[in-house]
Amino acid sequence: MSLYSHSSQYGHHGRHHHNSTSSQHSYRDPRYAQPLVGGYGGYGPPPNADPQLWQWFSTVDTDRSGQISLNELQAALVNEFDLDTVKMLMNMFDADRSGTIGFNEFAGLWKYIADWQNVFRHFDRDGSGSIEGHELSEALRSFGYNLSPRLLQLIELKYATGPASGYAPPAGISFDRFVRACVVVKSLTEAFQQLDTDRDGWIQVSYQQFMEMFLRAP
Amino acid sequence: MSLYSHSSQYGHHGRHHHNSTSSQHSYRDPRYAQPLVGGYGGYGPPPNADPQLWQWFSTVDTDRSGQISLNELQAALVNEFDLDTVKMLMNMFDADRSGTIGFNEFAGLWKYIADWQNVFRHFDRDGSGSIEGHELSEALRSFGYNLSPRLLQLIELKYATGPASGYAPPAGISFDRFVRACVVVKSLTEAFQQLDTDRDGWIQVSYQQFMEMFLRAP
Repeated sequence: MSLYSHSSQYGHHGRHHHNSTSSQHSYRDPRYAQPLVGGYGGYGPPPNADPQLWQWFSTVDTDRSGQISLNELQAALVNEFDLDTVKMLMNMFDADRSGTIGFNEFAGLWKYIADWQNVFRHFDRDGSGSIEGHELSEALRSFGYNLSPRLLQLIELKYATGPASGYAPPAGISFDRFVRACVVVKSLTEAFQQLDTDRDGWIQVSYQQFMEMFLRAP
Repeated sequence: MSLYSHSSQYGHHGRHHHNSTSSQHSYRDPRYAQPLVGGYGGYGPPPNADPQLWQWFSTVDTDRSGQISLNELQAALVNEFDLDTVKMLMNMFDADRSGTIGFNEFAGLWKYIADWQNVFRHFDRDGSGSIEGHELSEALRSFGYNLSPRLLQLIELKYATGPASGYAPPAGISFDRFVRACVVVKSLTEAFQQLDTDRDGWIQVSYQQFMEMFLRAP
């Protein structure tokens, strides 16, 4: 599934985000953008930037530094993304390792989140806003991971938005944790396969390697 | 270090929490406690309960059900503990697997957090309120984990409250994530040692085992 692959983040599918906004915002042609805030001469979108995307970027970039810091990203995603997911996204999209997200990096991040939102909506069959056990199985199977029922159950428990309860129905997995769960499965599976050179489903690992594999996963 | 061991949670060291409260609250003898809220006949501390602890419990138990749900626990710890740490604590202290925390389970949880707070303060040498790299190394070494510099660096990055930044000093590890990091190291090390029967520092694992080891860690 191409949406799942990290490398698809920069893919262009000829789609436009929120077409309606191009008329709503036609009064601000990004090619001739003026600084949005006085005293920060030159603050404006890069040439040919999507105006809607630039608007989002500048909303998140609250100190108008031209760069989104972790705190700004977290504030923008507050109550929607847990810190580990935000850190995972920062690590994936802070391509120049500056510790902040510039506009082009932000465009990739936004596309990635939008793609995952489509995946999430697709597998959230009952439209509950969270992914339940059987929906998770279906999603992972469609990504090519044929995991045992035991592993699927452990993933469901670990990434559920709450713990299993004796009374309540098991908590589902919210969007941010669903993305993290899928990226973790991908990351650990790839780390395993890299060592499983004879493809027999067994690897030999040292304590150092073992811990590193875990600590490198989001 | 006994504080680190999960089994120490029920240990009694003859210490009293907040001695001052015993006089402040002497008007409410827990042995003769009355329901705190009308209409919930019988809501009150168990016999011989620590009155301060009961007060905390009933504050967290906002719906006066006599049981703390995940949502109540999270609300009480909001902005202080991330969801994965709260879930880890629930899994550790919900001894009867009811999905909620009763008063006796709460007493164990509270003691555990108080003990960890002492550990945290002890290793936060510069009193910054977060654990930095060298403080983390020292803490883990004192718990008996002689990890390589590479692993220590990965732990510091993974559990830091923010990502490493090109500009800012590296983010430290907040209390909740420090507890989780230590429990994760303990959990993974024990899982590894269980398979490393000849103690040579190498194990052979199947994909199923490998994934299970990670998914069972907090």
